[in-house]
Amino acid sequence: MQRNGVMECSVCHSKVVAPSPRSVSRAYDKHRSKISSKYRALNFLLVSGDCILVGLQPILVFMSKVDGKFQFSPISVNFLTEVTKVIFAIIMLIVQSRKQKVGEKPLLSLSTFVQAARNNVLLAVPALLYAINNYLKFIMQLYFNPATVKMLSNLKVLVIAILLKFIMRRKFSIIQWEALALLLIGISVNQLSSISDGTKSFGLAVTTIAYIYTLIFVTVPSLASVYNEYALKSQFDTSIYLQNLFLYGYGAVFNFLGILGTVIFQGPESFDILRGHSRATMFLICNNAAQGILSSFFFKYADTILKKYSSTVATIFTGLASAAFLGHTLTINFLLGISIVFISMHQFFSPLAKVKDDKPAGAIELEDAQNHRTNV
Amino acid sequence: MQRNGVMECSVCHSKVVAPSPRSVSRAYDKHRSKISSKYRALNFLLVSGDCILVGLQPILVFMSKVDGKFQFSPISVNFLTEVTKVIFAIIMLIVQSRKQKVGEKPLLSLSTFVQAARNNVLLAVPALLYAINNYLKFIMQLYFNPATVKMLSNLKVLVIAILLKFIMRRKFSIIQWEALALLLIGISVNQLSSISDGTKSFGLAVTTIAYIYTLIFVTVPSLASVYNEYALKSQFDTSIYLQNLFLYGYGAVFNFLGILGTVIFQGPESFDILRGHSRATMFLICNNAAQGILSSFFFKYADTILKKYSSTVATIFTGLASAAFLGHTLTINFLLGISIVFISMHQFFSPLAKVKDDKPAGAIELEDAQNHRTNV
Repeated sequence: MQRNGVMECSVCHSKVVAPSPRSVSRAYDKHRSKISSKYRALNFLLVSGDCILVGLQPILVFMSKVDGKFQFSPISVNFLTEVTKVIFAIIMLIVQSRKQKVGEKPLLSLSTFVQAARNNVLLAVPALLYAINNYLKFIMQLYFNPATVKMLSNLKVLVIAILLKFIMRRKFSIIQWEALALLLIGISVNQLSSISDGTKSFGLAVTTIAYIYTLIFVTVPSLASVYNEYALKSQFDTSIYLQNLFLYGYGAVFNFLGILGTVIFQGPESFDILRGHSRATMFLICNNAAQGILSSFFFKYADTILKKYSSTVATIFTGLASAAFLGHTLTINFLLGISIVFISMHQFFSPLAKVKDDKPAGAIELEDAQNHRTNV
Repeated sequence: MQRNGVMECSVCHSKVVAPSPRSVSRAYDKHRSKISSKYRALNFLLVSGDCILVGLQPILVFMSKVDGKFQFSPISVNFLTEVTKVIFAIIMLIVQSRKQKVGEKPLLSLSTFVQAARNNVLLAVPALLYAINNYLKFIMQLYFNPATVKMLSNLKVLVIAILLKFIMRRKFSIIQWEALALLLIGISVNQLSSISDGTKSFGLAVTTIAYIYTLIFVTVPSLASVYNEYALKSQFDTSIYLQNLFLYGYGAVFNFLGILGTVIFQGPESFDILRGHSRATMFLICNNAAQGILSSFFFKYADTILKKYSSTVATIFTGLASAAFLGHTLTINFLLGISIVFISMHQFFSPLAKVKDDKPAGAIELEDAQNHRTNV
């Protein structure tokens, strides 16, 4: 028999204070917050940076056009972006190695490089998938109109969650699955306003080949992101700049092979990768590169889902900013859509929605005792 | 120190099995499910009945029209509906009193009636509010187009929740508030497809008087429902048929006063309340009456929120049925809207989202021990 947390010993009948469920859960929360508070500031910085870069994107795209058209080949942008990221990774590695203290394992030695290259060979997989995706985007636009492509892209968030569950063994609670579904729905509601009335009912040409293309179009980039997260996190001890160097190196190689392929099929004029570029397009490439580098930080220190939410919030801010500064009217669809997205975001990251670990009370108590020892 | 749920007495060092948080929560869940399982079957019956009645409504409305027009005065429908409900309540009271066993307090005696009438005088409040609301509906249609009225009606669900919080002292968790917001958004997304493009951006004539009318239009019926729930539940021991008799009696009186009012202002031909009615309109009135009676059961044995969800599900089923049988196409808006509504419903009624009672562990343990005693 237990009253007010005081328990009677069944042998000697003396009173003992029993651990209430609340004290256990409090100790456990404390244990968890110790781990997560360190990353919270980083997450905030990542999301803010992402919002700024994504917000700049449409301005740079507008500035890159000459007479309303792009003068350069879109494939060259991908290659130049990879090269920019490689250069950035090398610069950061040099900066980091100068800061190293005596006795630390040198970052720029050949042995470190070879060992890291061997450990991080998995990064070739996402690099290849990203390169394939760059070509898929063009193919999709031949089969579907841009609005439909945008709508189908939204399905990525659910595919990513399923892949995270199977590749990263992430557990999501039912509320979190619903939050992800709401994210997908919220973005779709927002996009509905920009779709012409003709395509609103299910009048898509849904042939078997279209289904297969959609499946590939949605799965390839999702798999790339999740596998990237897996590869970056599985070699957590390797410097992120070294990992980036490999990832973008592979990316540059695969994109270069792509350019070679187009040269073979379309003739040598495709090979002139710097044709039609201006100062504005260089800024666009730098912005693309910065977004890519930021993604690596998301994947290594946060996760693919946060990246998805971040992109959505960035889009929302762009919409709000264009309403405030350019006088665009906010549609009911936009307002309903962003309400859904914000509710989804709150639910996904709410502590209430987190999957409870199924540890027995004793194990948690023990864990907490160990934490206490290391603190003392 | 505690390991695997076994605790050592600090005085005599003998081992005592400590109650783990899980065993406490399990016992508590068992205690709660004992109370709620009784009502689950009733809730299911209420929602099913509501869906059937709401589904029949558009068919009966269609049948009630002669050459596409109503021949009768809409105010007379309200009065006849109240009278039908009064007749039903009297019949049920007679049936119930015949079933009474010897020694039970008689349902039909004058003393029971007078005492119940005195206790349930509060039911005059919702009856008056409902009567006022019947007139407000007409006024709203003078100021706003029907689609806007429909949209504004959605706000009722949030107003109801706020009133439940203050009048009924109901506690909602943050997830439940979000679920209610999602219900509102889901219904709105569904309705967006039927609104013409012109009204999609915020081009409403939002004058101060329109704001005030909206506030009244949304608050009056919400207050009526919540106050009805409060009045019915606060005299829980009074038979629901007796409570209905008072509620509908007051309703008939208020509606009759309304008709008298129109007679004074518009001349005596408004007094002919049976003019233009046919067999079809009688079915329509019976359906209205049945919906009203079912509402009383919702308010007394379930709550206003379940009633709201029930109406929404009924609308969805009507939409799906008209797609299946009448070949209407399902719009993307409809599919997105119902997805949001179903997620909202799951979240609102999910045990995860329920407000946790802040009882200390000892109190729950004690309660469980008492339950155990009564069972043995």
